Amino acid sequence: MSGFFGSISKESCVLDVFYGTDYHSHLGTRRAGLAFFSPEKGFQRSIHSLEDGYFRNKFETNLTEFSGNLGIGVISDTEAQPILVTSHMGRFAVASVSKIVNITELEERCLKQRRTFSELSHGTINPTELIAMLVAEGDDFVSGIENVYSLVKGSCSILILTEDSIIAARDKLGRTPVVLGKKEGACAATFETCAFPNLNFEIEKYLGPGEIVRLTAEGFQQLRQANKQMQICAFLWVYFGYPPSFYEGVNVDECRYRCGAALARRDSVEADFVAGIPDSGVGHAMGYSSERSIPLKRPYAKYTPTWPRSFMPQIQTTRDLVAKMKLIPNESIIKDKRGIFLDDSIVRGTQLKDNVRDLHEAGIREVHMRIACPPLSFPCEFLNFSRSRSNLDLATHTAVKEIEGKEEFDIREYADTNNGKHQLMVEQIRKRLDFTTLMYQKIEDLVQAIGLPKEKLCTHCWDGSSYF
Amino acid sequence: MSGFFGSISKESCVLDVFYGTDYHSHLGTRRAGLAFFSPEKGFQRSIHSLEDGYFRNKFETNLTEFSGNLGIGVISDTEAQPILVTSHMGRFAVASVSKIVNITELEERCLKQRRTFSELSHGTINPTELIAMLVAEGDDFVSGIENVYSLVKGSCSILILTEDSIIAARDKLGRTPVVLGKKEGACAATFETCAFPNLNFEIEKYLGPGEIVRLTAEGFQQLRQANKQMQICAFLWVYFGYPPSFYEGVNVDECRYRCGAALARRDSVEADFVAGIPDSGVGHAMGYSSERSIPLKRPYAKYTPTWPRSFMPQIQTTRDLVAKMKLIPNESIIKDKRGIFLDDSIVRGTQLKDNVRDLHEAGIREVHMRIACPPLSFPCEFLNFSRSRSNLDLATHTAVKEIEGKEEFDIREYADTNNGKHQLMVEQIRKRLDFTTLMYQKIEDLVQAIGLPKEKLCTHCWDGSSYF
Amino acid sequence: MSGFFGSISKESCVLDVFYGTDYHSHLGTRRAGLAFFSPEKGFQRSIHSLEDGYFRNKFETNLTEFSGNLGIGVISDTEAQPILVTSHMGRFAVASVSKIVNITELEERCLKQRRTFSELSHGTINPTELIAMLVAEGDDFVSGIENVYSLVKGSCSILILTEDSIIAARDKLGRTPVVLGKKEGACAATFETCAFPNLNFEIEKYLGPGEIVRLTAEGFQQLRQANKQMQICAFLWVYFGYPPSFYEGVNVDECRYRCGAALARRDSVEADFVAGIPDSGVGHAMGYSSERSIPLKRPYAKYTPTWPRSFMPQIQTTRDLVAKMKLIPNESIIKDKRGIFLDDSIVRGTQLKDNVRDLHEAGIREVHMRIACPPLSFPCEFLNFSRSRSNLDLATHTAVKEIEGKEEFDIREYADTNNGKHQLMVEQIRKRLDFTTLMYQKIEDLVQAIGLPKEKLCTHCWDGSSYF
Amino acid sequence: MSGFFGSISKESCVLDVFYGTDYHSHLGTRRAGLAFFSPEKGFQRSIHSLEDGYFRNKFETNLTEFSGNLGIGVISDTEAQPILVTSHMGRFAVASVSKIVNITELEERCLKQRRTFSELSHGTINPTELIAMLVAEGDDFVSGIENVYSLVKGSCSILILTEDSIIAARDKLGRTPVVLGKKEGACAATFETCAFPNLNFEIEKYLGPGEIVRLTAEGFQQLRQANKQMQICAFLWVYFGYPPSFYEGVNVDECRYRCGAALARRDSVEADFVAGIPDSGVGHAMGYSSERSIPLKRPYAKYTPTWPRSFMPQIQTTRDLVAKMKLIPNESIIKDKRGIFLDDSIVRGTQLKDNVRDLHEAGIREVHMRIACPPLSFPCEFLNFSRSRSNLDLATHTAVKEIEGKEEFDIREYADTNNGKHQLMVEQIRKRLDFTTLMYQKIEDLVQAIGLPKEKLCTHCWDGSSYF
Repeated sequence: MSGFFGSISKESCVLDVFYGTDYHSHLGTRRAGLAFFSPEKGFQRSIHSLEDGYFRNKFETNLTEFSGNLGIGVISDTEAQPILVTSHMGRFAVASVSKIVNITELEERCLKQRRTFSELSHGTINPTELIAMLVAEGDDFVSGIENVYSLVKGSCSILILTEDSIIAARDKLGRTPVVLGKKEGACAATFETCAFPNLNFEIEKYLGPGEIVRLTAEGFQQLRQANKQMQICAFLWVYFGYPPSFYEGVNVDECRYRCGAALARRDSVEADFVAGIPDSGVGHAMGYSSERSIPLKRPYAKYTPTWPRSFMPQIQTTRDLVAKMKLIPNESIIKDKRGIFLDDSIVRGTQLKDNVRDLHEAGIREVHMRIACPPLSFPCEFLNFSRSRSNLDLATHTAVKEIEGKEEFDIREYADTNNGKHQLMVEQIRKRLDFTTLMYQKIEDLVQAIGLPKEKLCTHCWDGSSYF
Repeated sequence: MSGFFGSISKESCVLDVFYGTDYHSHLGTRRAGLAFFSPEKGFQRSIHSLEDGYFRNKFETNLTEFSGNLGIGVISDTEAQPILVTSHMGRFAVASVSKIVNITELEERCLKQRRTFSELSHGTINPTELIAMLVAEGDDFVSGIENVYSLVKGSCSILILTEDSIIAARDKLGRTPVVLGKKEGACAATFETCAFPNLNFEIEKYLGPGEIVRLTAEGFQQLRQANKQMQICAFLWVYFGYPPSFYEGVNVDECRYRCGAALARRDSVEADFVAGIPDSGVGHAMGYSSERSIPLKRPYAKYTPTWPRSFMPQIQTTRDLVAKMKLIPNESIIKDKRGIFLDDSIVRGTQLKDNVRDLHEAGIREVHMRIACPPLSFPCEFLNFSRSRSNLDLATHTAVKEIEGKEEFDIREYADTNNGKHQLMVEQIRKRLDFTTLMYQKIEDLVQAIGLPKEKLCTHCWDGSSYF
Repeated sequence: MSGFFGSISKESCVLDVFYGTDYHSHLGTRRAGLAFFSPEKGFQRSIHSLEDGYFRNKFETNLTEFSGNLGIGVISDTEAQPILVTSHMGRFAVASVSKIVNITELEERCLKQRRTFSELSHGTINPTELIAMLVAEGDDFVSGIENVYSLVKGSCSILILTEDSIIAARDKLGRTPVVLGKKEGACAATFETCAFPNLNFEIEKYLGPGEIVRLTAEGFQQLRQANKQMQICAFLWVYFGYPPSFYEGVNVDECRYRCGAALARRDSVEADFVAGIPDSGVGHAMGYSSERSIPLKRPYAKYTPTWPRSFMPQIQTTRDLVAKMKLIPNESIIKDKRGIFLDDSIVRGTQLKDNVRDLHEAGIREVHMRIACPPLSFPCEFLNFSRSRSNLDLATHTAVKEIEGKEEFDIREYADTNNGKHQLMVEQIRKRLDFTTLMYQKIEDLVQAIGLPKEKLCTHCWDGSSYF
Repeated sequence: MSGFFGSISKESCVLDVFYGTDYHSHLGTRRAGLAFFSPEKGFQRSIHSLEDGYFRNKFETNLTEFSGNLGIGVISDTEAQPILVTSHMGRFAVASVSKIVNITELEERCLKQRRTFSELSHGTINPTELIAMLVAEGDDFVSGIENVYSLVKGSCSILILTEDSIIAARDKLGRTPVVLGKKEGACAATFETCAFPNLNFEIEKYLGPGEIVRLTAEGFQQLRQANKQMQICAFLWVYFGYPPSFYEGVNVDECRYRCGAALARRDSVEADFVAGIPDSGVGHAMGYSSERSIPLKRPYAKYTPTWPRSFMPQIQTTRDLVAKMKLIPNESIIKDKRGIFLDDSIVRGTQLKDNVRDLHEAGIREVHMRIACPPLSFPCEFLNFSRSRSNLDLATHTAVKEIEGKEEFDIREYADTNNGKHQLMVEQIRKRLDFTTLMYQKIEDLVQAIGLPKEKLCTHCWDGSSYF
């Protein structure tokens, strides 16, 4: 996942774009970038790696150099952004939240025209540079973005910074959100609405799928109407989103509270306390604890003063060390107790397994694991969803392989909760991860907790139901 | 406050001391230092400022240079440490958690002897260098430390790194803790026991007041017996300590849970949710919510990915900005609701006032503030307790000034809960900070939540009862 | 000016390319870059600013990350380089020493094709990216480079790094040099041959104008024959080149010695010592001193330990400070003495004027200035010759303006040594810069000192004789 | 060696002290420090390592933080300086150019008094901290400095920064220089007078041996008269000093010119050119070339743009690499030619041997080496003279060992030019270093070139004649 923020104002927008982008830091761990335009300095751009530092530390030194009333910023889990290009429509900067499944095919299309790519991202072309080139093929920005919509398979939301405005375009199926905000003398476009309150923006409009708007300091102007179909990622509420954010008008933390409560209503296990696996399980745990009136406790304290990042590094060994060091078990709460633990999901389960082992070492009596969504069975083809690279290491697939004793099988049978094989798989996961009991959310409860019609949501990772 | 950690092992202690010290990062924001000894490299020391970065970032680059089986580290809210000196007892490094009230008098004593101080700390001599000089006046380390005990007015716990052992000495009145840990082939001494579990140390012994021990990789040896009298700071449980830590065998987070529950038992206000002011109010809120079965919610989300530090910078303007930006209000939870808010204490109240204003802006209906300790009435003279520099800006003194209309008054009358003036002061604070209702913890409830005899605790900031 | 170096070897070429590029540091003060290819890591590129540090300091940290048997490096006085592109001919990196006079026209040509530029250089497109795009328009590298030759007005020498070879192409008129070197198991291409001896390369071949070769570890293969016409910059010998370098087989330092000797043979002024204006006047002064048997002295010492760079910063105020601080006058040599001073050329003369003022302050009796080339009268349109931005500030034009009392005049009259106006101009310069006497080199003496036929040399800045 | 600079002014002295100290960069490669005092900020001090950067780069970032009308700076080849101490005479900063031969004895004296050292320098106590402690033992600064004079065996010149003045004290035997300068509204004290001209200071007074003065913005006041005896290091003129500097009124570069001329007068070898081994041999070569009318050439060019430092790193492998890379041979000058090479001295001879090997590789016919001083036979016990660590690796001792075939011998016999063994030793050195001919300066010629009475000069390294 990645996230972006842009703002245009009657005064300097530099601090708003700096803090607004910073509030997307939970969405990416690789690269971040800012671009501004001012008549005096022209386009100014800076990109830093986030692999050895935080957004704010990295960009604080650039702050005094930037000037401008309009600018965009991006936290990227993959390529360097924003891309700054000179084109027949003038100079512009582009940031995107995208996954281009057919990138090789689109690269070859450009090379045949004897065009060159100037950016590299981990050994391949830079997807956002490709998007910028496809935009520049149009007569104007709208036809250029529609060129992107028609050519790119996957997902793609875009912010474009020109010399006098910001153009915001949401993915044609609305897989990722773009929300507009307004305050006196300024407009903004954001992925996460949690960027708004402290910058004094009010939510003005949730862009629809495929909708394109042009922002100026005075307001915004629709350049293209929204499409009917929508496939917004349901995992945004379960895991990705920051608790105070809203997508389609639905608050993340309240949704998690309802997820936890829904699990609780179907549960009757006895326990001494309820706890969330930090951080993403905490919201779910609050709903569960309240629904069943079992005290909420903190068997783990997260050492936030210096282990702040909620996302994990991609290298397994560092990941393990960070996982171990940042959570401190509290024996006083754990020893000889029965605990109900809420977590958002199980991907591979390796980290959860380590957590449970630590709990046992600290003397816990029973570990009842409750997961806020159904089993993850189908890898995501639509977003840069870093938690499930392939189906090979999903806990569900590992379990089915163990049950069937072979590499080839039909995961659809096991994903179907009405099929008896489903419960077999859950039991296999429980045993492997060493829980006393394990319960997953039902998909209908999850959809109800979100509160949107199921056909508007992408629930592909649980039921394989989505489309390009 | 400051905090320290030391370890001696049969193998390299570098990573243990690095992580063990890092787990004290919540105790100081100014300087941090590490010192190691190895026969090959001798004493190695590194000190960094924490004012523009975190302990781990700052020291990671030094890690590969350090070697040694014994070392100490310190997070300091004031001076640069550890101090490394060459003396008639050989070379040694010193770290301290101390406040030397009579430092000017002790400085003059040394200058009269035509001795020199080589370190400076914010324009005055470095307190830990003074401690090192006083230690070196002794015939040996024990008589040197007793020299410190007899000369220093305030508080002083000490770790000394020699070429073959670590000497740990707790303040003569035990105002700050020193706890020993043990694992196969290694011993450790720490301020915060939350440093132990992830490094696989088990708590072995809580040092008594004035107790001195010598640690080797095999174990420890008592060099001086504990004193009878104790005045351990009660605020350690209320605010300073990290939740999984233990002092005198009493766990911090459980104590906070009991504080919240105690408040709840005396309360009957109606509300839609309970919430803790992040981070230190959260533990208290969990106990309150559970006791009264009112749902725990997160009206604020703390943006931990890049605003990790729980302590505040000392400069008011930055402090205000950080306070504003790191907490994101969630309108979905706040709007038109009645909330009960738990916080550990009220110092000046400025930050709390801002929080409440933000809640009102987000549409809250009622704000019921519950404070986990009694009103802070007497400034701390015993520790570097950064939260109350002087009585001038304490919320209690501001309130009494407003009531009496003059600068001079007897705070003891208002601190006494049996005196009618106490309730007048509380009401004045409530009005100034714009709460719907305000309730403080009773001191007997707080003492009971901690569970130690009152005479063993320093409760000076609430009742002015302690002594040098 | 800029300079580049590339090498391909049977072993790692990283250190050779690092040091080889470093030896071009006198040619540029803005940006430097290195690019390598290895099968394991693919293309690796790093670019740093040189405005706040030296090449070696900046790139030393990257050294361990680079790997490869082939690579190129560039010191650039203008844009960021090398450019790395993905094209229909595969991925390749490009470095250039170029000046594209018609860049705006070529930019518009590309934009009309709806192509985009991804790089920016000081607010305009990056010339080397443009070159890369023009190369990629060809069917192969040779036709692509010929496309550059035919479209670019100005000058352009090129190094291209592919996955298996380096392609070196010299400017079509040979304005800047490209020289091939060879050692056991490796080939190299360089601008400055002073990069060769310490890396154990022997000069193998001076590329002719427009010649293109392909280098492998075994040797090189001619891809395109040299053109007949040549216009190599004569200033390379007078000022730009490093003393041990050779162009067209003619050594720089020996040429300067001959320049000084030629001046001496036409001179009879009496003096106590001869001195070169550091650094570029020193070689000339040695030839002069020897020819006339007047002792060579150092009235100025350059403070090289920390003022190492011979080139000047572009900002006038810093330029003045550096000029003042890096040269230390030696009163012992200067006071009451008559000195003959050699300098390579006079551009604006501001720095020389300051030098002379300092000499007078130190008590010199006479200052006889001898310039190793004729008066600079025509600004360079062919190279990024940073010493004469425009004719507006040339000492010659300033002098003529003073003589004629108007802005418009025909500089050709004054540039012609046979025209009486020439001597008037020289006298005006002498007076303005406060020399006792002033003598310039005659162009025939300079051409003879170089030793190439005049029609092979670009002497445009002296006689306005060159062409595109 | 080390060097220092201090200034006190009616206005800010920060830039003067910054540049004045920078002009001592050739004297040390380890540490540098600056200290200032202003009433608002008190004492401000900053120390940086020079092992990975230059003085100016390292301290530029500190410049804006410093303020004050008085300050001192030091370039140190050994310990961190200046030392800032708090004492019964108030707070003061100390910088020294010193070698304390009896440091262990003085350390023990302090430890017995149960005093502590807070600074460490490469595993031992910091010599300048010891000096500060000895100064503070006095009743006032003069008696304190006399305490240093009487206790320290070796050499010691001192700058002390107090809150209102600078105290400058030259070594009791004047082994190292201290020179006072004056300009309108400011006074300065320096080691190298080459720091003066560009800061507009005029030389006011050469301090005598043991002389102590107090500097204010108005002028200076003598606190202690000079001693009669003097032993100033003759090597200052031969090698250490920067060419434009003066000691005892004698200019360095002119002295070197006379050294070269003196060698020439005793020489008759035929050659094609004369050259100095860069940088320190160049001044000598100019005198030689002029005396014999043999052209001065540059067979080596030093690549100053990025290899600026004239001193060598202490690690042999890096030293070798730097030596190789920074000098570029010019085949055009070397090939088939006979050269006379001047160098200041031969220490071990390793570097010279490499140079000569490179000359042979470049095809030289004859190498005639001329050394500007007699053979170095006795290691320096009086200064931190980094070029001769011990007699073990001196070229003279190596040669005698080879001649005698044993480790024990009387070097005095070989150092005596009247003894036939002397010429045997020189011939042995010549053969080992592969010179065609080798000639050393005679000591009487050297003394005459300097121009002071021999008894005022320390010529110990050549004749073993000095004393403590």
